[in-house]
Amino acid sequence: MKNQIGYSVLIFCCCNALSLGGQNKFANLAPVKFSNVQITDAFWKPRMDKVANVTVPVCIDQTEVKTGRIRNFERVAGTRDGKFEGIFYDDSDVYKALEAMAYTLKIKPDPKLEAKCDEWIDKIAAAQQKDGYINTYYTLTGLDKRWTDMSMHEDYNTGHLLEAAVAYYNATGKRKLLDVGIRMVEHMMSLFGPGKTHWVTGHQELELALVKVYQVTNDKRFLDFSHWLLEERGHGYAHGYTWTDWKDTAYAQDIKPVSLTTEITGHAVRAMYLYTGAADVAAYTGDESYLKAMNTVWDDVVERNMYITGGIGSSGSNEGFSKDYDLPNERAYCETCASVGMVFWNQRMNRLTGQTKFIDVLEKSLYNGALDGLSLAGDRFFYGNPLASSGTHFRREWFGTACCPSNIARLIASLGDYIYASDPQSIYVNLFVGSNTTIDLAKGKVEIRQETEYPWKGLIKLTVNPEKAQSFALKIRLPGWAKGNPGAGALYKFLDEGPTNFATLKVNGQAQNLKLDNGYLIVERNWNKGDVVELNLAMPIRRVVARDEVKDNENRMALQRGPLVYCVEGVDHNGSAWNLIVPDQVVFTPQWQPDLLGGVMTLTGTGMAIVPTKDGIGAQTIKQKISAVPYFSWCNRGSNQMLVWLPRKVKEIKIP
Amino acid sequence: MKNQIGYSVLIFCCCNALSLGGQNKFANLAPVKFSNVQITDAFWKPRMDKVANVTVPVCIDQTEVKTGRIRNFERVAGTRDGKFEGIFYDDSDVYKALEAMAYTLKIKPDPKLEAKCDEWIDKIAAAQQKDGYINTYYTLTGLDKRWTDMSMHEDYNTGHLLEAAVAYYNATGKRKLLDVGIRMVEHMMSLFGPGKTHWVTGHQELELALVKVYQVTNDKRFLDFSHWLLEERGHGYAHGYTWTDWKDTAYAQDIKPVSLTTEITGHAVRAMYLYTGAADVAAYTGDESYLKAMNTVWDDVVERNMYITGGIGSSGSNEGFSKDYDLPNERAYCETCASVGMVFWNQRMNRLTGQTKFIDVLEKSLYNGALDGLSLAGDRFFYGNPLASSGTHFRREWFGTACCPSNIARLIASLGDYIYASDPQSIYVNLFVGSNTTIDLAKGKVEIRQETEYPWKGLIKLTVNPEKAQSFALKIRLPGWAKGNPGAGALYKFLDEGPTNFATLKVNGQAQNLKLDNGYLIVERNWNKGDVVELNLAMPIRRVVARDEVKDNENRMALQRGPLVYCVEGVDHNGSAWNLIVPDQVVFTPQWQPDLLGGVMTLTGTGMAIVPTKDGIGAQTIKQKISAVPYFSWCNRGSNQMLVWLPRKVKEIKIP
Repeated sequence: MKNQIGYSVLIFCCCNALSLGGQNKFANLAPVKFSNVQITDAFWKPRMDKVANVTVPVCIDQTEVKTGRIRNFERVAGTRDGKFEGIFYDDSDVYKALEAMAYTLKIKPDPKLEAKCDEWIDKIAAAQQKDGYINTYYTLTGLDKRWTDMSMHEDYNTGHLLEAAVAYYNATGKRKLLDVGIRMVEHMMSLFGPGKTHWVTGHQELELALVKVYQVTNDKRFLDFSHWLLEERGHGYAHGYTWTDWKDTAYAQDIKPVSLTTEITGHAVRAMYLYTGAADVAAYTGDESYLKAMNTVWDDVVERNMYITGGIGSSGSNEGFSKDYDLPNERAYCETCASVGMVFWNQRMNRLTGQTKFIDVLEKSLYNGALDGLSLAGDRFFYGNPLASSGTHFRREWFGTACCPSNIARLIASLGDYIYASDPQSIYVNLFVGSNTTIDLAKGKVEIRQETEYPWKGLIKLTVNPEKAQSFALKIRLPGWAKGNPGAGALYKFLDEGPTNFATLKVNGQAQNLKLDNGYLIVERNWNKGDVVELNLAMPIRRVVARDEVKDNENRMALQRGPLVYCVEGVDHNGSAWNLIVPDQVVFTPQWQPDLLGGVMTLTGTGMAIVPTKDGIGAQTIKQKISAVPYFSWCNRGSNQMLVWLPRKVKEIKIP
Repeated sequence: MKNQIGYSVLIFCCCNALSLGGQNKFANLAPVKFSNVQITDAFWKPRMDKVANVTVPVCIDQTEVKTGRIRNFERVAGTRDGKFEGIFYDDSDVYKALEAMAYTLKIKPDPKLEAKCDEWIDKIAAAQQKDGYINTYYTLTGLDKRWTDMSMHEDYNTGHLLEAAVAYYNATGKRKLLDVGIRMVEHMMSLFGPGKTHWVTGHQELELALVKVYQVTNDKRFLDFSHWLLEERGHGYAHGYTWTDWKDTAYAQDIKPVSLTTEITGHAVRAMYLYTGAADVAAYTGDESYLKAMNTVWDDVVERNMYITGGIGSSGSNEGFSKDYDLPNERAYCETCASVGMVFWNQRMNRLTGQTKFIDVLEKSLYNGALDGLSLAGDRFFYGNPLASSGTHFRREWFGTACCPSNIARLIASLGDYIYASDPQSIYVNLFVGSNTTIDLAKGKVEIRQETEYPWKGLIKLTVNPEKAQSFALKIRLPGWAKGNPGAGALYKFLDEGPTNFATLKVNGQAQNLKLDNGYLIVERNWNKGDVVELNLAMPIRRVVARDEVKDNENRMALQRGPLVYCVEGVDHNGSAWNLIVPDQVVFTPQWQPDLLGGVMTLTGTGMAIVPTKDGIGAQTIKQKISAVPYFSWCNRGSNQMLVWLPRKVKEIKIP
């Protein structure tokens, strides 16, 4: 299946196996789309409103005015003069902003915003060439060079075009952009594919996007093309500057065929998009070698290469992975987009397998590594999300390479996608977010009403309203952190044992025995309108320690409560955070602070600090009140020192 | 002179002005070539032997076997199979190794080494195309693409070919490689030049190399072509990936024409090679606008962008310059090649102006920033030379981009180039290195014998042996550090006043009044055989502080003695260096340690250290003997903490 000769055979085999989910050995949970989920949550709803009211307008302003990414489309269409401006992948900024706008429209209809989308779509459509090709960089700098360098993001841009097109089609029913996207794909398929020229995507993204197009069109050509693109990898077909000049086949995960991959390598966002696409394709093809490979790679990520924040890609030089256990804190790259990618991929892995451990990681990345990328006010962004700062890291208005802002915007705007799933006999509650939805089971519709103050409190109340009484399984994820595992693998563990009864479950006020399956608490019964399930998760403050192999966390611990990882900031400690010591006997207590950082639970205790003596030529140890804030909320009070991993004892001192 | 239209006029004007040095308004000191200088120095001679006996063989082994850079030439010639291997600029590794080999041959004839050179030269010559083109990357990957991307180092490789060719011609009189180089240049000149196609060198180097070819051939076409290449910059002619993809015109100093440049920008090595070539050309053309621009840029370097070690290029992301005063210590890039480039450029500036301040900086870069790049054993290298290390920086066997090893090798092998200069009536002693030379003055030859234990001691004894008695000026550089300036500008200053009489001068035992001109001590007399001049420079240990604008050096000082900058290493302080405090009242004394690091003067005093308490949950301040070693010698006892800028007091503590 991996050799070149057997290639066309494979394609035909797989084509025969293509079918909608549920027809193969995989769990194939059905997603519940965000458009069917009304979010009422006290934590997330204001953030989604902020995205709609602030972040999306910022993206529009940047795309139209400040960076003017839209102008290249106008130049192709001939309505504006000038040379191509920006970088060859800048078209994707327009598409990703449009995708975020589309999600926002679905949540909160807005005729002006819709008119803006249509205006952009007209400009995009006008930039499409007669043969379907659309890419302003090559069209303005020389079409003769198109498709000559696989690293030049023609595929990546197309993927984001398709994602935007599907989102806008789903939001409005308008298919103009979808048609533009499909014409571009048809142009690609006329050049590349079985028996035609090879193409290895230099920045994966198109694969997952093609599956989205398949899902709205039911046209199997798109799924097949996605599958073919996946199968192109790892055979030495590729050329392009990352391969030719950088000599780096690992960068875009081209070392081995997807199904033989065992290790996470290279650029983190590329990896996440690749495995998301591979999981999407496997859901239809039932290809177990893909699932096996992805499970192995996933273990490599969570066991050896993931930060406690769910961030990945520790190295800035390749925006990606380095050696196992190489998880520096201040130099942590942890691109926002990579955490967004972790959310995508882990959602797909959960769908394929029905296992909660993937949602545990999704939740970790969502509440920590990804959410950290957006300021509380919604108008500033992190590209990298380090776990320690000496005070130089700050939130920016925008970036030259502006992938992260619109990525976090589209994720939050589509948060509803990640809360529920279903199969014909079950409803899965994956995330604890106040919301209402209605899910179609085999025996009829069921409305679910979720109420909670998560992540601050552990009580989750689910009201179940079946159209008519019916039996099915309500499967509620019991989070990994509530089962004694802070990280989903053996990379991190809680320092202390903690309570033994993390969860209690009641149905209509009656305590229930806990029954677990694949990590889910199973409540199977005949449901009547108004049945109430209450899950109560204890939320003690826990100290997390890392494996000894993580040299950067030696003698250190991180504070976690519920899904949230905490940090200390200099602003709460006389300007310094890197001089604090938190011996194991320090007791922390949670304190709800409604006026701090938009309302957060802080963790406070009395530790120590090493401070200079008054004469400035020595140091002394003093008692110090320590106040930790959620990691996602740091750097909203200016640049300052920050630390996730706190010293439990001192082996060395540095004078900065 | 800078506009496009006046261009060809310029070339013709300049051609008329071309002549050997001495015919224009510049000082035009004549260099004294290393081949006419016998080095007897206790500090440098063993280092030169190490380069000949260890470094050059390491370069040969890497070039032939380990990285096999020579193999691409064999592939072009058809004597070996396989695809191009390595990176497109790898031919230059072969040329630079060859250049170092040639210098070594000149110092220490070695028939085996010469045979190896001839063997390589045969392989190189066999890889030249019929039209003169020589570049294994394009020849093996597609000649149709040659000369399409100015960033692809075709010019840079050619420059290093020419430098090697001139060096080997000078060493042996054999001109095979020189002819290869000239054919390549003639090929280039058939394509590029006035009235032909534009070419902006993407990595400057060819300019200075062409002047070397001019100097050995006296063929003015090469000087003209160098001048033309310089004049191509800053007009928007360039294309290539650093311009097109990176959108970075500053990277290769293409923002403005050379003569209008006011600021140092971009890639540090490119800048140094550019200004070296520009100074070389100006020496012949007498172009004062070049000199004015270079003086302005030089001020920008030494006043705002140079480390106390003479290293430049603080930023790793562009291997170059960032903002003024942005001189981080641990993240300091300070490429070895950039310090080598500082030596080249400052030598040329001294020749043009006759001013010692350029040699002050040359000396600083040579003894600190550049020399640091080579291990004491001669077989390990630094690419970057930071001024602080948390213990992770280490000397490597070689690099993927292997510019630095052969660059430091060729510099040390040709050290003799930098010691003396002359004009018809004067001998200039620029560096204090035990050596003998004979210099041709207007009135006859003069032998100079220099004896010194510099940089450890400040006594320099010069014996003057004119062929026959004659009057001339002996001009001895009075170093900037001996005039109260540690850095040649206002960026650094000595903390304390220090002694007022730094220098004493005797002629034949008689004390002399000091007479200074352009920074040189002038001794003008009628010289007889055996006349002895003794310069004695006091070498107190000085504390250097940086301007307040250098935030990274706030509350810190560096130790300097003579031209040497010092550092502290963890290995001398129980493993830690970043916890030391050196209040201003600590007195340091020099101690000669013959068995340490090949013999060094250490500086010792009693300061303080902040160390953890025994229970590990606090810190205390203790007395600590502090022993500083010369910066160039650090990291020869394993990776460990290192610090150049020592805290004078403590404002903050960090627990690492």
